[in-house]
Amino acid sequence: MRWSSYFIVTSKEVPKDATAASHQLMLRAGLIRQVTAGVYSYLPLGYRTLRKVTTIIREEMERAGAIEVHLPTLQPVSWWEETQRVAAMGDVLLRLGGPAGDWRTHTVLGPTHEEVITEIARAYLNSYKQLPVNFFQIQTKFRGEARPKSGVLRTREFLMKDAYSFDIDKAGLDASYQKMFDAYCRVFTRCGLPYLAVEADSGAIGGDASHEFMVMTDAGEDFIAVTEDGAYAANLERATCAPLPSQSADPLALGEVHTPGAGRVEDVCAMLKTNPAQMIKTLIYSATIPAGKDKTRQIRVVALVRGDHDVNEIKLRKVAGAPIELALPKVIEELTEAAVGFAGPQGLLARFRDGDKLIIDRDVVGLRNAASGANKTDYHVTNLNPGRDFPLEGPHITVADIRNVVDGDISPTGNGSPIRLRKSIEIGHVFKLGTKYSDAMSATFLTREGKPQPLVMGCYGIGLNRIIASAIEACHDDNGIIWPATIAPFQVAVIALDPREADVMRVAEDIYAQLVQSGVDVILDDRDERAGFKFKDADLIGFPLRVVIGKKSLADGVVEIGQRRTQSKETVTPGAAAQRIGELLSQEFSGLRC
Amino acid sequence: MRWSSYFIVTSKEVPKDATAASHQLMLRAGLIRQVTAGVYSYLPLGYRTLRKVTTIIREEMERAGAIEVHLPTLQPVSWWEETQRVAAMGDVLLRLGGPAGDWRTHTVLGPTHEEVITEIARAYLNSYKQLPVNFFQIQTKFRGEARPKSGVLRTREFLMKDAYSFDIDKAGLDASYQKMFDAYCRVFTRCGLPYLAVEADSGAIGGDASHEFMVMTDAGEDFIAVTEDGAYAANLERATCAPLPSQSADPLALGEVHTPGAGRVEDVCAMLKTNPAQMIKTLIYSATIPAGKDKTRQIRVVALVRGDHDVNEIKLRKVAGAPIELALPKVIEELTEAAVGFAGPQGLLARFRDGDKLIIDRDVVGLRNAASGANKTDYHVTNLNPGRDFPLEGPHITVADIRNVVDGDISPTGNGSPIRLRKSIEIGHVFKLGTKYSDAMSATFLTREGKPQPLVMGCYGIGLNRIIASAIEACHDDNGIIWPATIAPFQVAVIALDPREADVMRVAEDIYAQLVQSGVDVILDDRDERAGFKFKDADLIGFPLRVVIGKKSLADGVVEIGQRRTQSKETVTPGAAAQRIGELLSQEFSGLRC
Repeated sequence: MRWSSYFIVTSKEVPKDATAASHQLMLRAGLIRQVTAGVYSYLPLGYRTLRKVTTIIREEMERAGAIEVHLPTLQPVSWWEETQRVAAMGDVLLRLGGPAGDWRTHTVLGPTHEEVITEIARAYLNSYKQLPVNFFQIQTKFRGEARPKSGVLRTREFLMKDAYSFDIDKAGLDASYQKMFDAYCRVFTRCGLPYLAVEADSGAIGGDASHEFMVMTDAGEDFIAVTEDGAYAANLERATCAPLPSQSADPLALGEVHTPGAGRVEDVCAMLKTNPAQMIKTLIYSATIPAGKDKTRQIRVVALVRGDHDVNEIKLRKVAGAPIELALPKVIEELTEAAVGFAGPQGLLARFRDGDKLIIDRDVVGLRNAASGANKTDYHVTNLNPGRDFPLEGPHITVADIRNVVDGDISPTGNGSPIRLRKSIEIGHVFKLGTKYSDAMSATFLTREGKPQPLVMGCYGIGLNRIIASAIEACHDDNGIIWPATIAPFQVAVIALDPREADVMRVAEDIYAQLVQSGVDVILDDRDERAGFKFKDADLIGFPLRVVIGKKSLADGVVEIGQRRTQSKETVTPGAAAQRIGELLSQEFSGLRC
Repeated sequence: MRWSSYFIVTSKEVPKDATAASHQLMLRAGLIRQVTAGVYSYLPLGYRTLRKVTTIIREEMERAGAIEVHLPTLQPVSWWEETQRVAAMGDVLLRLGGPAGDWRTHTVLGPTHEEVITEIARAYLNSYKQLPVNFFQIQTKFRGEARPKSGVLRTREFLMKDAYSFDIDKAGLDASYQKMFDAYCRVFTRCGLPYLAVEADSGAIGGDASHEFMVMTDAGEDFIAVTEDGAYAANLERATCAPLPSQSADPLALGEVHTPGAGRVEDVCAMLKTNPAQMIKTLIYSATIPAGKDKTRQIRVVALVRGDHDVNEIKLRKVAGAPIELALPKVIEELTEAAVGFAGPQGLLARFRDGDKLIIDRDVVGLRNAASGANKTDYHVTNLNPGRDFPLEGPHITVADIRNVVDGDISPTGNGSPIRLRKSIEIGHVFKLGTKYSDAMSATFLTREGKPQPLVMGCYGIGLNRIIASAIEACHDDNGIIWPATIAPFQVAVIALDPREADVMRVAEDIYAQLVQSGVDVILDDRDERAGFKFKDADLIGFPLRVVIGKKSLADGVVEIGQRRTQSKETVTPGAAAQRIGELLSQEFSGLRC
């Protein structure tokens, strides 16, 4: 490709509103242009990179035996009602606008394709002989993201590779899941991403197990917990740790202190001259549970965590066995007989009604002489001792891990390595769905014995746009992007300084032709611009290698080859340039193959 | 690919509701599955073909120097207001549903991308030095099609290649247009389509000139006019013909006849014992024209055509110089002073107001002793002679071609060849837009002299799904699809009869491996099914070539090679099969290269 007949628009301006490095650099290097909030056009350079990512993913999906399909964006809302995801998705599920009752109001834009593929499976996958099978597609998704941000990291329209596996049983699913897991590792390795596979919660997609593939960077919005030794990694929703050691102090006599207006942990600590780690925080939730045919009733779920810890509501929900939400003030006041902010565990059980639950974080159990609310407005108790002042066992009581891990917690693997919390970008997610969707949509197959059984499903997603942004987050400098050679828009730039010099252009054209001939993805910068201007563009766009042909160095019989990543420079004769580029490219590609 | 590890679902059932052959066969061969009205999933076989079409188009676009981008579906409605296309598009322009004022209600789904690309041009194309440039994308379009039909021929979601060229002037546009025109010819030739490029009207896209690329088939919904000698072709909206010869009869005295209740041409003809070709039909339209600053007023446009001809409203609108619509009864009654159905040209001019127009089809001029309405309820006039009984010239009068051509009209090229009307499918459309969008969106560049001027644009579309459907319409038989080798999902099927026979499978695997090795796109039918069942599938899916390995023929030392198109069969030794397939594939590809 010749620069002069291509379309590249770079900018020196750091765009206002763009804070993430990838967002700034994608705009400055002319990879994308914003159309509206959370919606971007891919300009030629950006689309070249996106296509290279697409090709890598397609190759690895096919290598893993997945079969490509293409499912549409427009879907009937009735299928989403079958799987009861209309409410679960909320505003994320976009639909067309139109007069009431019109076809448009029954049509949604696919944020994901479990329903569409399960309908296909229901129609065609009738026998165990057709299984296992795994369908994938690379297709645009639409989500009503409330707050799009960070360029292509959080958008309303994005390109996703989604795959859906169908198996006869859980063992089959485990094998399909592992194949995809391995394929994902190959995809991210080939794309040059420093990724980490972490245990994750399944969230609104549902299912039994899942892993997220994360790239650690401060531009990310998700936290992951990683041990210093690298042996354990999980996202914050899912991460656990070793229990803290019990305290050993002798129990002192329970006291009550007047703490007027001190409903918050920090206020109490100031007043009592203690610290949050020595407090017990009491949170009261409401949960709706079934109560006979078509009926439900409300129960109260009391959660205790240490004052410096946060309740992990996903963990709490699992222990409670029901969806939970923070209770309304009047529910709290009724239970504690005190104003909000003064709840505590002692005496609370006596006021429990049938079904109410007390769930105690396991790191509360070992506290000695802690402080807590007194269930009495403007009062706290001191020297509270779990087991002595409130029970740890009983029909309504569970002790469990219900908190978020914090920096410095110890690895759950038992090797003592401390946990660190790191911000990261989710670039892929694999789920063992089980029969959630096949049950909901009655997608069954006949076993070898002729018995109908629900298909056992997995689903697997990769965000293509995020691969690009996280590759940039992971590798850039003050001058611009440093691309992995596999997904760089061009691998090599041949830069002709002063193209009006016939000798310069002749050598540049010659090297360019040799590189094209040997299959190198190369661009010839033939613009009539200053050298500094061209170098700045090359740095900003981030071509892994460059060959510079100038009048002065030609007079010395050499051209200069530069490597973006290492900033190293060397000179070779024009005749040797193409071969040397080939060698350096091989180096660039090493570590990006699998 | 092995059939047993792939996903192919064929069906003997002719689907109800599917009338077009392509629709039936795409469903029966398992290429697509309907999701909702006008929305289809592409199953693996269908998507393979779609990807091959995509690759051909991408190659030809790049060969023509176009640069690939990717523009999003979601677009701000404000850009469509800038180009005044919100009303012009009507319900075709889909938008997201949401509460009034929400971002969703300001967001439309792109039915095309003139606005988005013109905004990019406005932002980045600032200098003549950057021109010409042509951007293309292969991307999904959404249109609120009121009546989706014929499978993938008329849908609400479809894949389109759209390209947009930007030039400094009309001469540049002519060159860009010609490059795209030539590229389109290569695309359709390579896809094996018997296409025809016809002159077309620009419609809602607007602009100066356009051509449609059509495939003639009864499944099409558009009519095109083609001369028997093939020297002229145009779509019905645009087609013209040689004027009819004037009649030579002597003029007779004008008469008036009582024709009670006979307001329609056929009723009058029955009563007067004449035929529609001897009548003058008078249609009265209303048009809105500017009348000073920010004001408009209504005028009446009277159109005369022969009784057996239809007014072509696109031609009429151009002659009238204003948008027209059929007048309301009260407007007609006020002008003719008679009930609707009795309008005629004589005496009408006397009742014209300033601005009213009489537009006479040129084939009315040569009529002698015709019949027409008398501008008097329940009366017609006879022996009406143009020029004698109503004027053919004057300030309000224009004689022009304002009718649709009919079967049997004579070519406008002057060679006397008769015109035939043929149904066809539009697979591509190229437009010279001129400055319609750059004017509306203020997209200007600086000329060499430093003067700002609007970019001169062209736009160019191909419907990928329609290429597939029209290839099937153009070539199939009772047994199934007959694919062009370039876009067949697989070029060759190696069919092992009774794969439980070790010898059969060994030979089949061997031939399969040789074909894979030489880059042939081949599928191995390794299913444990009856021979007849496998042959039926192969015919239905339409692989161009097949190799059949059976126990019986192997005993004779041969395998059978069959050609789908010619139904021819031949036997070769197993060792010679791969080479012979290569030769036959070359034949299949001949005529599909350019």
